[in-house]
Amino acid sequence: MKNIQNLIRKISELNAANLFDKDFLLTWEKSENDLKQILLIAETLKEMRDNNISPKVFDSGLAVSLFRDNSTRTRFSYSSAASLLGLSVQDLDEKKAQIAHGETVRETANMISFLTEAVGIRDDMYLGAGEAYMREFGDALTDGYNQGVLPSRPTIVNLQSDVDHPTQSMADLQHLIKHFGGLDKLKGKKIAVTWAYSPSYGKPLSVPQGIIGLMTRFGMNVSLAYPENYNLIPEVEKIAAKQAKENGGSFEITDSMNHAFKDADIIYPKSWAPYWVMGKRTELLRNNDHSGLKELEQQALAENAKHKSWEVNEDMVNLTKNKNALYMHPLPADISGLNCENGEVTNEIFERYRIETYKEAGWKPYIIAAMIFAGKFKNPSETLENILKRNQKRISG
Amino acid sequence: MKNIQNLIRKISELNAANLFDKDFLLTWEKSENDLKQILLIAETLKEMRDNNISPKVFDSGLAVSLFRDNSTRTRFSYSSAASLLGLSVQDLDEKKAQIAHGETVRETANMISFLTEAVGIRDDMYLGAGEAYMREFGDALTDGYNQGVLPSRPTIVNLQSDVDHPTQSMADLQHLIKHFGGLDKLKGKKIAVTWAYSPSYGKPLSVPQGIIGLMTRFGMNVSLAYPENYNLIPEVEKIAAKQAKENGGSFEITDSMNHAFKDADIIYPKSWAPYWVMGKRTELLRNNDHSGLKELEQQALAENAKHKSWEVNEDMVNLTKNKNALYMHPLPADISGLNCENGEVTNEIFERYRIETYKEAGWKPYIIAAMIFAGKFKNPSETLENILKRNQKRISG
Amino acid sequence: MKNIQNLIRKISELNAANLFDKDFLLTWEKSENDLKQILLIAETLKEMRDNNISPKVFDSGLAVSLFRDNSTRTRFSYSSAASLLGLSVQDLDEKKAQIAHGETVRETANMISFLTEAVGIRDDMYLGAGEAYMREFGDALTDGYNQGVLPSRPTIVNLQSDVDHPTQSMADLQHLIKHFGGLDKLKGKKIAVTWAYSPSYGKPLSVPQGIIGLMTRFGMNVSLAYPENYNLIPEVEKIAAKQAKENGGSFEITDSMNHAFKDADIIYPKSWAPYWVMGKRTELLRNNDHSGLKELEQQALAENAKHKSWEVNEDMVNLTKNKNALYMHPLPADISGLNCENGEVTNEIFERYRIETYKEAGWKPYIIAAMIFAGKFKNPSETLENILKRNQKRISG
Repeated sequence: MKNIQNLIRKISELNAANLFDKDFLLTWEKSENDLKQILLIAETLKEMRDNNISPKVFDSGLAVSLFRDNSTRTRFSYSSAASLLGLSVQDLDEKKAQIAHGETVRETANMISFLTEAVGIRDDMYLGAGEAYMREFGDALTDGYNQGVLPSRPTIVNLQSDVDHPTQSMADLQHLIKHFGGLDKLKGKKIAVTWAYSPSYGKPLSVPQGIIGLMTRFGMNVSLAYPENYNLIPEVEKIAAKQAKENGGSFEITDSMNHAFKDADIIYPKSWAPYWVMGKRTELLRNNDHSGLKELEQQALAENAKHKSWEVNEDMVNLTKNKNALYMHPLPADISGLNCENGEVTNEIFERYRIETYKEAGWKPYIIAAMIFAGKFKNPSETLENILKRNQKRISG
Repeated sequence: MKNIQNLIRKISELNAANLFDKDFLLTWEKSENDLKQILLIAETLKEMRDNNISPKVFDSGLAVSLFRDNSTRTRFSYSSAASLLGLSVQDLDEKKAQIAHGETVRETANMISFLTEAVGIRDDMYLGAGEAYMREFGDALTDGYNQGVLPSRPTIVNLQSDVDHPTQSMADLQHLIKHFGGLDKLKGKKIAVTWAYSPSYGKPLSVPQGIIGLMTRFGMNVSLAYPENYNLIPEVEKIAAKQAKENGGSFEITDSMNHAFKDADIIYPKSWAPYWVMGKRTELLRNNDHSGLKELEQQALAENAKHKSWEVNEDMVNLTKNKNALYMHPLPADISGLNCENGEVTNEIFERYRIETYKEAGWKPYIIAAMIFAGKFKNPSETLENILKRNQKRISG
Repeated sequence: MKNIQNLIRKISELNAANLFDKDFLLTWEKSENDLKQILLIAETLKEMRDNNISPKVFDSGLAVSLFRDNSTRTRFSYSSAASLLGLSVQDLDEKKAQIAHGETVRETANMISFLTEAVGIRDDMYLGAGEAYMREFGDALTDGYNQGVLPSRPTIVNLQSDVDHPTQSMADLQHLIKHFGGLDKLKGKKIAVTWAYSPSYGKPLSVPQGIIGLMTRFGMNVSLAYPENYNLIPEVEKIAAKQAKENGGSFEITDSMNHAFKDADIIYPKSWAPYWVMGKRTELLRNNDHSGLKELEQQALAENAKHKSWEVNEDMVNLTKNKNALYMHPLPADISGLNCENGEVTNEIFERYRIETYKEAGWKPYIIAAMIFAGKFKNPSETLENILKRNQKRISG
């Protein structure tokens, strides 16, 4: 209880936070205080639930989910967050909707939002499209609200776009805070964000982009490693470099996994499809060019196969600080000898950190809930204070 | 607050309303007081929510949804209504159910209703089928309730049948009431319900039928216009004529869009597939006659193409009362130059009324909630009074 | 009210019940007191709801559903139970999830459970697989809980496996208790659990197995009848025989439907695919052997066709005690002349008992709710007592 009160006090001290009535699309658009507020609210909500205090603030209302790509973790995290706050999830399944009819985004956005508090969107397949879609959706909501169509402005939560995956990166950051004992303790820590081999292709860029775009905010030394031509969206790499400079950390790009792992406190190895492949793929998907897509897949897989050595194993971990850097992964991982022959990480190493990666994932529901909360309540610390006072139990009886 | 109390008082004065334990399938089966009660409850529920008073009356229970055709607006309206009243939506997806096994309707109806308060059904594809299905479903519920299988009689809400679309027409009526300042102000107003060109075919008849079946109840002058052979279900046209006579308005059928638009206060132009096409289509669908269906589609599209001039543009609007009749549409519209080359309405005209059509749609969640409410509470004004007294907040904190 | 208090008192007297933090997979793993507790809680929850007392104990949280086979009844029963207790259903649709990616069961189990209270699983297609899957899932949850990943241990409810269908058999038992006036009244009653003809094939074994595995616990005389080679899983037949011996009833296997029906108090005739067919089918499904599957289907249907006389008709019912044994069926039934030419039961007989079978099904939501309740509350009678005291209304207003 005392811990909860401390957390609320800290939130109340973050005067400049500016998340009310806003969407959460990119971490690098948000101020440091905005991010701190999300982290603190997430922690408060978790503490409340762990202490059987219900933070249900909505007596009714919808949390719309729109998944344009498969999802387990994020779907369940979103549902969990909605339930915790008192919202009913309604899925916008574009196959069952009239959207194919040529309905405009601005119309859909308004039509589903008359009693809606939050809209979670995953749209990560098409480079240049996901982020743009969310913006267009958000503009339509703002317009609908301003014109008196909507009684309030629902908050969009980016559940993964082509550019960023903020619910993942913020959950990861919360995990690091818990692991190292505070946000300030991350200053000067080295994190290796590296490509890793996978027998599949076409994995989105948003996770590594999200990580370098967030961890460069807090004075960390971020080492991004990938084989030649496996770069991320250039603009995002530039943002990371700029942020590192501004926040007293560093950012480097290397083509050596070993170099990145050297003395790292944290390792975040994950496969992705190179920027040029994602760009090409987007073009081919748009043109419905099936043979072109097949050809690209072959080409990309052949390219990947040249880099099977980009695997986390005992030798690699031995390069890290005290031979025991914290291993992170958004899951599911490609685990050599478990769900594939050669993958991102050996079974041995993954098993050692498996429970840690599960705990990492466990923050996501609370991060999402915090993003909705901050978007919907003007004065979050006051609202949390009131929740504490009313003392409604999550489980009664 | 005073407004809410006024609304509740008005509801309490509608003594003859008879909606308790009944389904809502066709507006023309309901008395004038029944319809007024729905409109007033809808408005009350909206006012309550707008004033942060939660009208949640169910602490648990299901709102079943059964969509046999695609839906965005109505699906979300139904979910929103369910959430507002405290019900959990459970979709009856016939593909994932055992219904293909030859399960009878009477059995399905009972099996899904042990803890169910409302069943929303959309079944508009087959002429002569949707309405019949809802009746059969309702009879089974009544039987199950009478025989002690069900603890209460769930209320069926017609979310669009082959005959009527009452949640649409009632939301439209509520929009008109707000626009013109009262139900009594609609007396003598001219509404043009007209066919309009669309590059697609097979659009249901239920919307225009719903509109002529409802607006002839309140002394309006209804002008129904369509090209030769594009008539609606003849029985419904007859009902509209009869109602107009009984209620001091008028009803005419014309084959001139211009004639209908002349001095109209309201224009409601919308494409539909003619009665004979829908009948033929039903037969072909039943016989799984794919080549026949393709042929019919070609024939119907060719027929449609002869009537491209049935488009709402500036010239057409200039025919209306003061050149600015209220444009209405259930959405999504076929908008020339926006989502099709030639459609029901020019982009310019649609844009002028776009926000109005969104507001029109915004009443649907409340109309649905009101239909459930009236079906489940014997004395709605008393129940609303109690909700007002208990003063539970929709958003707390 | 007095009845509810009596029920709660009875629950409080079942000291040895041991369901807290456990899954409910097989009735024969549970003690007699465990089963009695479930039955009494189910009855209490139903009485409470019937008296407008809300047993909502969760203010938020997920009830995950995972259906690997079609379902209507059980899906709606599960949803209803979840709603009654205050949980939001989130479906784990493996097609929309990342599970195809080679994600492990242990990972999925944890990823969906951070704020989850219950997981309902139907997995009845593959012999030897469903039960195993649920165990693996449960072990992962236990591990996740022990390792601090999960804040509590969600309860798995077996919604039908290859081995048992406990929510069905327990609902059936509750129906028998109500019909005969008490659990003790079942002692010495004869129940005929028999195969019956169906024009389809591949129906799971779990229902007849569930019935013989449960009814032999309470001193009933269970007569299991099927044509030669239509046996159930041998181990389950052995368990039934052993239990009958231990509990003062009897268990016999016969190849004569007439013999089983002779003087039966209860008849439970239902089609199933023989053990060897299910085994073969599992193998063929695993190998994706489509022609083999087609062949097996032909063979099995031809075999079935030899036993069309295994149909419940007037003559058969006349063999039973006072010519009016209670007919039971999990539904939907294959009804001769209604949804098939020849089936499990004549239309005449089915119609006579139809309402009874609906009431039988009506217990399932409460049985499921009771299983979740018993899994999540250490002291169910105390919790129920508190619910009674707080007197929250299910329907207010």
